[in-house]
Amino acid sequence: MSDKDPAVILDSAKAWWSTAIIDMKPGSIRFAGFPVEQLIGAVSFPQMIWLMVRGTMPTPQEGALLEAALVSAVDHGPQAPSIAISRMSVTCGLPLNGAMASAINVLDDVHGGAGEQCMELYADIARRMDEGHALDAAIEAGLDAFIAARGKIISGFGHRFHPVDPRAPRLLALVDEARKQGVVNGRFADIGRGVEASLADRKGRGIPMNIDGATAVIYAELGFAPPLGRGLFILSRSVGILAHAWEQTQQGGRIKGPMPRDIPYTYTGPAPRDYPGTASGEATP
Amino acid sequence: MSDKDPAVILDSAKAWWSTAIIDMKPGSIRFAGFPVEQLIGAVSFPQMIWLMVRGTMPTPQEGALLEAALVSAVDHGPQAPSIAISRMSVTCGLPLNGAMASAINVLDDVHGGAGEQCMELYADIARRMDEGHALDAAIEAGLDAFIAARGKIISGFGHRFHPVDPRAPRLLALVDEARKQGVVNGRFADIGRGVEASLADRKGRGIPMNIDGATAVIYAELGFAPPLGRGLFILSRSVGILAHAWEQTQQGGRIKGPMPRDIPYTYTGPAPRDYPGTASGEATP
Amino acid sequence: MSDKDPAVILDSAKAWWSTAIIDMKPGSIRFAGFPVEQLIGAVSFPQMIWLMVRGTMPTPQEGALLEAALVSAVDHGPQAPSIAISRMSVTCGLPLNGAMASAINVLDDVHGGAGEQCMELYADIARRMDEGHALDAAIEAGLDAFIAARGKIISGFGHRFHPVDPRAPRLLALVDEARKQGVVNGRFADIGRGVEASLADRKGRGIPMNIDGATAVIYAELGFAPPLGRGLFILSRSVGILAHAWEQTQQGGRIKGPMPRDIPYTYTGPAPRDYPGTASGEATP
Amino acid sequence: MSDKDPAVILDSAKAWWSTAIIDMKPGSIRFAGFPVEQLIGAVSFPQMIWLMVRGTMPTPQEGALLEAALVSAVDHGPQAPSIAISRMSVTCGLPLNGAMASAINVLDDVHGGAGEQCMELYADIARRMDEGHALDAAIEAGLDAFIAARGKIISGFGHRFHPVDPRAPRLLALVDEARKQGVVNGRFADIGRGVEASLADRKGRGIPMNIDGATAVIYAELGFAPPLGRGLFILSRSVGILAHAWEQTQQGGRIKGPMPRDIPYTYTGPAPRDYPGTASGEATP
Repeated sequence: MSDKDPAVILDSAKAWWSTAIIDMKPGSIRFAGFPVEQLIGAVSFPQMIWLMVRGTMPTPQEGALLEAALVSAVDHGPQAPSIAISRMSVTCGLPLNGAMASAINVLDDVHGGAGEQCMELYADIARRMDEGHALDAAIEAGLDAFIAARGKIISGFGHRFHPVDPRAPRLLALVDEARKQGVVNGRFADIGRGVEASLADRKGRGIPMNIDGATAVIYAELGFAPPLGRGLFILSRSVGILAHAWEQTQQGGRIKGPMPRDIPYTYTGPAPRDYPGTASGEATP
Repeated sequence: MSDKDPAVILDSAKAWWSTAIIDMKPGSIRFAGFPVEQLIGAVSFPQMIWLMVRGTMPTPQEGALLEAALVSAVDHGPQAPSIAISRMSVTCGLPLNGAMASAINVLDDVHGGAGEQCMELYADIARRMDEGHALDAAIEAGLDAFIAARGKIISGFGHRFHPVDPRAPRLLALVDEARKQGVVNGRFADIGRGVEASLADRKGRGIPMNIDGATAVIYAELGFAPPLGRGLFILSRSVGILAHAWEQTQQGGRIKGPMPRDIPYTYTGPAPRDYPGTASGEATP
Repeated sequence: MSDKDPAVILDSAKAWWSTAIIDMKPGSIRFAGFPVEQLIGAVSFPQMIWLMVRGTMPTPQEGALLEAALVSAVDHGPQAPSIAISRMSVTCGLPLNGAMASAINVLDDVHGGAGEQCMELYADIARRMDEGHALDAAIEAGLDAFIAARGKIISGFGHRFHPVDPRAPRLLALVDEARKQGVVNGRFADIGRGVEASLADRKGRGIPMNIDGATAVIYAELGFAPPLGRGLFILSRSVGILAHAWEQTQQGGRIKGPMPRDIPYTYTGPAPRDYPGTASGEATP
Repeated sequence: MSDKDPAVILDSAKAWWSTAIIDMKPGSIRFAGFPVEQLIGAVSFPQMIWLMVRGTMPTPQEGALLEAALVSAVDHGPQAPSIAISRMSVTCGLPLNGAMASAINVLDDVHGGAGEQCMELYADIARRMDEGHALDAAIEAGLDAFIAARGKIISGFGHRFHPVDPRAPRLLALVDEARKQGVVNGRFADIGRGVEASLADRKGRGIPMNIDGATAVIYAELGFAPPLGRGLFILSRSVGILAHAWEQTQQGGRIKGPMPRDIPYTYTGPAPRDYPGTASGEATP
């Protein structure tokens, strides 16, 4: 299939899988150069998450701010599709890994992408400020561009269940505290609050920042790329997905559908009819 | 939580799941109105697929053309990511459903979307013809628009392994035959061949139609919407995914990685270093 | 990492992925030795499925019996967890491949394994007959062993919705027909009907064969291994999963949960309480 | 479909989804009774994980021991099937959620179940001690039962790559420290070390405890049920799965297979042959 020298092919095979994340030798595992046994017990789980996805070790203060965001988003109840899927999966016979996989899979653009989209909005506004625009002007231009590209729902603001999302003000208070301590510079907190104010002006009523908007502030303050906003949300929500899968395991049940069977679904298709060449009540000869 | 009348809430619950695909009563199952027992043994599996996704029953000739496309795309070998994933999954302990799920999941835009994208290109060219443009002009404008939106790789044409994809000419020959018999009108066969000719002109060398371009001709001739191009491809490739999962089950193996362990991966990150506050060889106190 | 000769390592790499299913060279694709372009248009999709998972080409009559089983199991409505998951997934932003993956994943032991389990029961009874036991004695012993291992629910018999599953008698009629024509020998039809009769005796009421019991008869008659009973069911039910995902795509909706929001879930945990060190209404300092 | 009173059906619908994990009202989210805004910034992410899966809040010391275990298991390199799948998935077009889903799915019995199996072994030994057996006798009986049920590979001991897994001694040292401080009672550390000693005796060479055996000690000391051993491992390994998916996103690549294409796979099936009724080089008429 190839006339190349075996040693050359082998070198390309060695290079096929390459990574800066982990280095292993028999008896040795290092992450970004650090021996794993030195990290265990010395760094927090959020610090380890940061090290893994970015290759640098955050300060404990940065790790703590990340931790607050991770704690905040673990669950929003069993009627969210991801959680319902996790629970239904268990009743179909799946172990926890399978239930978590089917559930995490649906944390896609609509159900899991709001934080990432909000980070992109914030980043776009920040870029406009870097180009010399004032905060307010950058916000207006950023919002206009977002709406033109994505429509009128602004990811990270408003909630169909909570008039005010109780997680957002608490997260912002922690950002303010971190800003005072010099952990972050507060630029994205300003941008986020500015977007909230602009939306209230535009709509004539409050569209308060929700958890996605608040975690987006934190992740942006800490320097994460927008797609990692989705990734970090998944790590957080995985906790709820696991908890509900495990609770359903303990509740039991077999092949649990979305609603009790006493509530039928609605059929909207063609009326009963015979298939040509066959007669009602008789099978095809 | 709600002050509505229970009967009203219940009605909205009944309407929550609504479908024109299937109607069931105890002892009765109907698809698009037809009793299932009249369909079993009377229609082909491809006809049933068509009925399910479109709500209409194709003629046997239409079913046969769909069948040829489904037969053609079942597999492209164990080094395609989807197939490799299916086989690796089995060695991790997954049953066939889990292996198939992990594999089918990756039939996304890049690995499973070429047929859909090619159908969109063909549909765009057909729209331009409907607006009065000649075939050649519509093809040039359609290709220009496709390249502007998606870049220079034209989905459905060219293959990195096969100089000529052996499946494409055979599928097109079947379309020609179906056209002679009045099963299809041949419009998309003309469009597909026209795109192939234009690409050869543009590049100065042949970029022959591949299986995605040829199945796109068939699915478009038969009136399927572009997203169903992806859906039908998945039904077809699922056969290969199952076959390889099953073969791997019989071969055995535990936790089979992508390459034999004698071929190491390449580490490209920071050199070994101690984590501050800990000493090499000693654990954190 | 290894001191072996590159050529030796390379040979083990070549052997790492090995298959009897497909052979490819540039311009050539063969399944079990047959060129793909000779199969396209010449064999049915069910024949191709058979060739892929078993390596042999069935007769058209064998293919037709397999086809009837594949047609019969495509869907059982939107309140089955797999179908509900497929539809919910689409409203979370997943394309068809992702929706199908999350749904197929749950076709595990409980929701997708009944056919496989029933084939194992039939195979166990057949083994007892091969050892010299009469049909009736083999059935009683086989049922006793099944119940001891798996409990009182006999996979393939009884249905919580249908008093008589309309698919089963039709499928058995097709097996009888195939037996008359010498396509199958009817041994597993006898076993299946014998199990049904024994269950009626044991329970004092009919526990009629359902679709899983009937397709298990067909798959066993045709010589498929029990795990492929699950695999073939997945290929069949994937059609319904795709059809419902596509219908939901057309219906639209965002983040569709299992029930309408007017129906709240029930909370059964601890009453409201403050977290120690924090005061109600105030955030942690 | 039902003649029941709408209010009665509605009540059963409300009870269909029930949970002790989360209680929500507009503007309020409580976990096990605690308002989320009091937990954010006050508890660690590992403490939150514990609260979610068990309904109780651990002490900071318990949280810290759990944290060490979560940090330890994040990754074992790109040639583990789960990590390879995550990376390959990205090159097929999947976003991070999809890549993580396909990868997490394979953390099944073989690739993700060792910790759970080891916890079951430890729990079985503890039960024997509760029944009055001495530690050594309980270990021998527990090991014999495990081997009889599962074969000679003892989950949690030995490693095919590391002569000594560097994570295990560090984790055990942390358990010893926690025992001195009264955080745990050390029973499972004794059991784990006893199993290691017994295996060395039985085999005549060391089969040292690996990461799964060591995290199993921690999870068992902290009172987690065995299936949660798998669940916690998934939360930990999800970090590596995310990190590698993100690194691959940045590396780019399209449809990355398991090995470079210069290394062909091995075909082991039938030799080339014509399909009956068709001629080589010619398509079926």
